[in-house]
Amino acid sequence: MFMNRLSKTIISCLLFSTSSLAATTNDLREKALSSPLAYSVVESLTVEVGPRIAGSEGDKRAVVWAQDKLKELGFDKVYTQPVRVRNWSRGRAEAKVTKPFAQSLVITALGGSIATPKGGLQSSVVMFSSLQELQAASEEQVKGKIVFINRRMIRDRAGRGYGPVVAARAQGAIEASKLGAKAILIRSVGTDNSRFAHTGAMRYSDEVKKIPAGALSNADADTLERLVNTGQTVELAVEMQAKEQGWQTSYNVIGEITGSEKPDEVVLLGAHLDSWDEGTGAIDDGAGVGIVSAAASLVKSIMGTPKRTIRVVLYANEEFGLVGAREYVKANKESLEKIVVAAESDFGAGRIYRLETRFADRALPFVDSIVEQIEPLGVFKGSNTAGGGPDISMFPGLGIPVVSLLQDGTYYFDYHHTPNDTLDKIKPEDIAQNQAVYALFAYMMANNDVDPRPAPKS
Amino acid sequence: MFMNRLSKTIISCLLFSTSSLAATTNDLREKALSSPLAYSVVESLTVEVGPRIAGSEGDKRAVVWAQDKLKELGFDKVYTQPVRVRNWSRGRAEAKVTKPFAQSLVITALGGSIATPKGGLQSSVVMFSSLQELQAASEEQVKGKIVFINRRMIRDRAGRGYGPVVAARAQGAIEASKLGAKAILIRSVGTDNSRFAHTGAMRYSDEVKKIPAGALSNADADTLERLVNTGQTVELAVEMQAKEQGWQTSYNVIGEITGSEKPDEVVLLGAHLDSWDEGTGAIDDGAGVGIVSAAASLVKSIMGTPKRTIRVVLYANEEFGLVGAREYVKANKESLEKIVVAAESDFGAGRIYRLETRFADRALPFVDSIVEQIEPLGVFKGSNTAGGGPDISMFPGLGIPVVSLLQDGTYYFDYHHTPNDTLDKIKPEDIAQNQAVYALFAYMMANNDVDPRPAPKS
Repeated sequence: MFMNRLSKTIISCLLFSTSSLAATTNDLREKALSSPLAYSVVESLTVEVGPRIAGSEGDKRAVVWAQDKLKELGFDKVYTQPVRVRNWSRGRAEAKVTKPFAQSLVITALGGSIATPKGGLQSSVVMFSSLQELQAASEEQVKGKIVFINRRMIRDRAGRGYGPVVAARAQGAIEASKLGAKAILIRSVGTDNSRFAHTGAMRYSDEVKKIPAGALSNADADTLERLVNTGQTVELAVEMQAKEQGWQTSYNVIGEITGSEKPDEVVLLGAHLDSWDEGTGAIDDGAGVGIVSAAASLVKSIMGTPKRTIRVVLYANEEFGLVGAREYVKANKESLEKIVVAAESDFGAGRIYRLETRFADRALPFVDSIVEQIEPLGVFKGSNTAGGGPDISMFPGLGIPVVSLLQDGTYYFDYHHTPNDTLDKIKPEDIAQNQAVYALFAYMMANNDVDPRPAPKS
Repeated sequence: MFMNRLSKTIISCLLFSTSSLAATTNDLREKALSSPLAYSVVESLTVEVGPRIAGSEGDKRAVVWAQDKLKELGFDKVYTQPVRVRNWSRGRAEAKVTKPFAQSLVITALGGSIATPKGGLQSSVVMFSSLQELQAASEEQVKGKIVFINRRMIRDRAGRGYGPVVAARAQGAIEASKLGAKAILIRSVGTDNSRFAHTGAMRYSDEVKKIPAGALSNADADTLERLVNTGQTVELAVEMQAKEQGWQTSYNVIGEITGSEKPDEVVLLGAHLDSWDEGTGAIDDGAGVGIVSAAASLVKSIMGTPKRTIRVVLYANEEFGLVGAREYVKANKESLEKIVVAAESDFGAGRIYRLETRFADRALPFVDSIVEQIEPLGVFKGSNTAGGGPDISMFPGLGIPVVSLLQDGTYYFDYHHTPNDTLDKIKPEDIAQNQAVYALFAYMMANNDVDPRPAPKS
């Protein structure tokens, strides 16, 4: 008996020393870099759940999956927070050129679009090179027609091509409707040349009539552009069956590794659990879910329990307006000040190349200590003006420090918001690099007394 | 009057000398290499006609388009030859995993497949790594199930990955049905990782029951493979609405530049006019149509009328069993011996890197003269065992000399037989290289007395 108890203690000590005393950040870096954990989490999510648009059956299965997975990964507290979400369904979307030459065109509904009248609508096309050109057009040019905004997205490592183009997706239906258009089709917000159309959220205004809004694949936008450029009148028949299916309850799913010394101080790692409905949401944002969940788990299993709490928040319904993120801020109003720092992974699984921070001056020297840990992984120091990512975009305004771990997004917009967002687009070695960077960042922030609060306002 | 007539004669002479006397093969090479003609032909076909599966409305429009285009390109004789074709229609094809985890899978019907019963069919999946493994299986393993053949295609410049994999597409339904399968799904015969499924012709046998046959996109085959590899029973629901729509008349469209000295000796350049129904048939085989039509046209406009006749044959219904090609041989039985040499372009628009021939010994020295002309374009000499391409594949057996101008097909099977076979996949500079090589080859063969007939039997 005595011997037994003693040997148990010795084993315990050995385990403890291996995991939390002897392990160094070099160990964490190397082990995280060679661990398949993040990839396996994305594999599990995409194969066992698949598409999970907010409020859908897939979304509900994802919430169950996420709780099980976080428990399996060693989070000691796993809980949910209800979020009301609209459940929009895409339905079929079809477009055909009827004049001057018959052609079928691949389109998809933009997220939140209304349907066409049953049987579809027909009209001639008026093409604009940008939202701005549409805004400058006359009612005479547009009235009764189908507006086609034909602006190409530029490929860029940092994804800087997105901003200039996405305005037409979000705002195009409002502007086209103001001038009396019947419908709007935009060239896909994407950098691929393929026949996958890129969906994404769009808005209506109460001031103007709602009109159906869709996106053409880039290859089909090429065809339509060529037809319009012949100078002949081009007519289209468009049918879309999108529909609102009422409100549902979804959930932010939260997992915590409770800190051993300062459990109420929180290092928050975010990603979003929902995806669009056509792909399996591997890069958007299965990758983020895998990266932050695996990173926190590896910190615990390799380095032992951290001093501060590491909290992973898998947000509901990012795609339809950051709804889970807003709910998180509202529901946790009283405790937001306990968040020492937050980071979000929501840009696929391309390698991280830069750390940007938004820290109080006092904590800036510590940024160099973090960078020292992640430089061997190819991550260098950036500015102190980080925005932090969509779901934590309200944090800087609330004084909560954030970091942005900038990823290589050169190919992200080839697949983003298409049926082609699937697991095969993720390179295991790239997602492992992300996992290692997040693990080192979380470890450094959770095992230090440095306090970057409050974040400087911009 | 006199002066007028004289000056006209002078102008005529000048034109003649520019076009046919003074121009050298260097001129032909340079002008053909910088001409956008082939590209513009494919652009016209894909934009103004689009998909053109045999017997369809698109196929009928293509036949009209081809006659107009060949006339526009300066062919002095343009005619058609009727070909009876079956008109199969794809319809929707959908598959869903129902157990152990719900997932939608992207599939497409293989060309010629029957439909599922209305409302679809459901069963468990049995996975095989190849057609051979299926053939070696027992009835017990397969009976009542959905067979999944999961063989990956290897990427290769010469397309050598196709042969080993395509057998499952052509023959899989027969082999699966022999063992009592309900349906068969194969991993797409394609080298992409995307969610486009690759169609292509399949066969039935009168000996066994017809079962529905489809292809999964490679990304979806990955998912299904992962599910099967969990060891749990995987069940699918599959619905396909393919249908036979009876027989139609299509046409081989033929254009000739009649030879000035030996009009009955023919240099034949082939390509096929039909395409599958989901893409716009840009690489398969709009590219070939553009290359051979433009090459012949450029020979005439740059070098003047050739001594032998250059005949462009745009074959009907290659995709469903070389039907137009067989009809061509049958209908022209008496005059086949007049074909001095034939070449076909049906492998996209990748650059040509090698000339293979099947010439009688006496003509072999002339191969070096051709190679001398095309080596500056990166095309080197290959063997004398050429096959010639699908639509002229019966020629060597009939003693008709053929050449194969081998193209770089590294990326061809990323798009082949998918909705993603569109104009943007063709690089203008690559198709221009093809056009220049075909023009030089046709010019050399049509302006020489060399006679490679009869082709050696293999």
